[in-house]
Amino acid sequence: MKFVRQFPALDRRALLSSLAMLPLLSASFRSTTAEAQTQRDPLASWNDGATKSSILNFVGRVTTQGGPDFVPVDQRIATFDNDGTLWIEQPMYIQLAFALDRVKTMAPMHPEWKTRQPFAAVLDGDMKALAAAGEKGLVEIIAVTHAGMTTAEFEKITSDWIATARDHRFKRPYTELAYQPMLELLAYLRANGFKTFIVSGGGIEFMRPWTERIYGIPPEQVVGSSIKTRFEMKDGAPTLFRLQEVNFVDDKTGKPIGINEHIGRRPIAAFGNSDGDLEMLQWTTLGAAGARFGLLVHHTDAEREYAYDRHSHFGKLDVALDAAAVNRWTVVDMKKDWKRIFAFD
Amino acid sequence: MKFVRQFPALDRRALLSSLAMLPLLSASFRSTTAEAQTQRDPLASWNDGATKSSILNFVGRVTTQGGPDFVPVDQRIATFDNDGTLWIEQPMYIQLAFALDRVKTMAPMHPEWKTRQPFAAVLDGDMKALAAAGEKGLVEIIAVTHAGMTTAEFEKITSDWIATARDHRFKRPYTELAYQPMLELLAYLRANGFKTFIVSGGGIEFMRPWTERIYGIPPEQVVGSSIKTRFEMKDGAPTLFRLQEVNFVDDKTGKPIGINEHIGRRPIAAFGNSDGDLEMLQWTTLGAAGARFGLLVHHTDAEREYAYDRHSHFGKLDVALDAAAVNRWTVVDMKKDWKRIFAFD
Repeated sequence: MKFVRQFPALDRRALLSSLAMLPLLSASFRSTTAEAQTQRDPLASWNDGATKSSILNFVGRVTTQGGPDFVPVDQRIATFDNDGTLWIEQPMYIQLAFALDRVKTMAPMHPEWKTRQPFAAVLDGDMKALAAAGEKGLVEIIAVTHAGMTTAEFEKITSDWIATARDHRFKRPYTELAYQPMLELLAYLRANGFKTFIVSGGGIEFMRPWTERIYGIPPEQVVGSSIKTRFEMKDGAPTLFRLQEVNFVDDKTGKPIGINEHIGRRPIAAFGNSDGDLEMLQWTTLGAAGARFGLLVHHTDAEREYAYDRHSHFGKLDVALDAAAVNRWTVVDMKKDWKRIFAFD
Repeated sequence: MKFVRQFPALDRRALLSSLAMLPLLSASFRSTTAEAQTQRDPLASWNDGATKSSILNFVGRVTTQGGPDFVPVDQRIATFDNDGTLWIEQPMYIQLAFALDRVKTMAPMHPEWKTRQPFAAVLDGDMKALAAAGEKGLVEIIAVTHAGMTTAEFEKITSDWIATARDHRFKRPYTELAYQPMLELLAYLRANGFKTFIVSGGGIEFMRPWTERIYGIPPEQVVGSSIKTRFEMKDGAPTLFRLQEVNFVDDKTGKPIGINEHIGRRPIAAFGNSDGDLEMLQWTTLGAAGARFGLLVHHTDAEREYAYDRHSHFGKLDVALDAAAVNRWTVVDMKKDWKRIFAFD
């Protein structure tokens, strides 16, 4: 009772009676908070139904202390694909839109591009010629737009672009095209002690400048594809120079490999939307004891967003859709399960 | 004032007077806590002096809200080398001791090793012949002891070994040979909002099974060297199989590269002990604005631990020691600055 000695002028009795009341007050505050939380649905943009219930049930089970499926906080790892899972990937991956814009920005310094493929196709907006250039053409575009500068320079380039570029259909910055129900899901999982990671086929350095602001996911919890870098001291300052050499492709079987390398624990929940996420969902849900959760976002809403699956060029969902039925992964029917798609809806 | 309505039976006046007293009480509790913290030195195993002061000053500056050197919590990243910085690395890296032990354990299944180098040297305890086998021999030993099994199998092998193996000189499990002053430093930084990472030339999967228990550093905050893995579905269960192929060497220029790949932010403090840490300290302290801290542990205590630097086979400290003077990195004189080396001292 040191504090009583420190405040001899205080009425001891009043002080003690205040102390006696503290537990009541705090219980009262607690119940008010709990009430507020119940009133505010953490997944407000999800329609009631089997999909939403499967999420709530899973989180309820792994967070119930003493329950058969309880998972300690440090093991509550959840991994999310990005393109098509957290934000849009049609009519093309946003990173590809960045690369094409970047070719246009760089063109004045490369007059030879006017007649050289695949660059001429990009500059002429000739998507057919670009498609004809195939993967080889794409790799060339990625190489000139993503390499040949320091990591600090690339961070500035991507940050500037993401702040100004607009999606053609929605006339919005791409960062506003994150799915509101998924943002709620990320926040809901974190409120329940989960550590949320991005595990994307997209470029790790393309995502990191904005994932914390948009998704609440800090750079160190972003796993993605990468190119090699070289360390150099330049005028006394250390730099990392981005090389035209692939380091890691974080897609398909690369996802569990990337998860193991970066996180070093097996997730207990994984969220994706395409065949590129199949192995991540397998790694997460199969062959390990305890409660596990796999979810695929199925794009079924051409009106509010896009509808595509087995035959799509970007975000093809075919084998993984069949696997979902076998493995009892939750499949989100966007049209039916999501009250709204974007925050501005 | 919802809680008042919820407890109509309570004397409103008594309640309000309790509330009025809350700030006083809480101020009183706070001052008691602050007092307790001052009494308990967070770096109790560090002797007073310039080294200890440099740490306390740095942490004080970056955590002083409104001060010129304040750093927001999410940017308080600190990276630590492992071998020779957090635990011993003499008379050889502990992971090498593991590999040699593992050769002996595996030998009954490999009768040909009795006459084949470098394995015969290991089995005969002939360190001279082992040294003669050079780096090629070492790579061969690492390959057979670290690859050719799943990640889950390797985790079990390393966990079992670390639980039972003993250092020859100190007759203790290796995990007891962590430096007590550095454990205090890790805890002190975390108590001040830092996120602590290991960035080691050692194997990432060799460290992860025990870093959380010993250092309070979870698997996802461990960066290290790695070999490639292959994803396979085996009888319906997903596995990662460890291949005899180097993926990444997290040493020297590899350290800033590994930091950038795994953490994606530049640390504001870095701790090492050898030339392998030079580029990590450069990357952390040079060419970026704001308060930065670099520290090297100099092994100067042959009596309580080991004394070595410029000519050591393991943990050579030569170029980085010269760089420390130029760049004003703190150099720990183990003998002088550390009250005790190990928890059991």
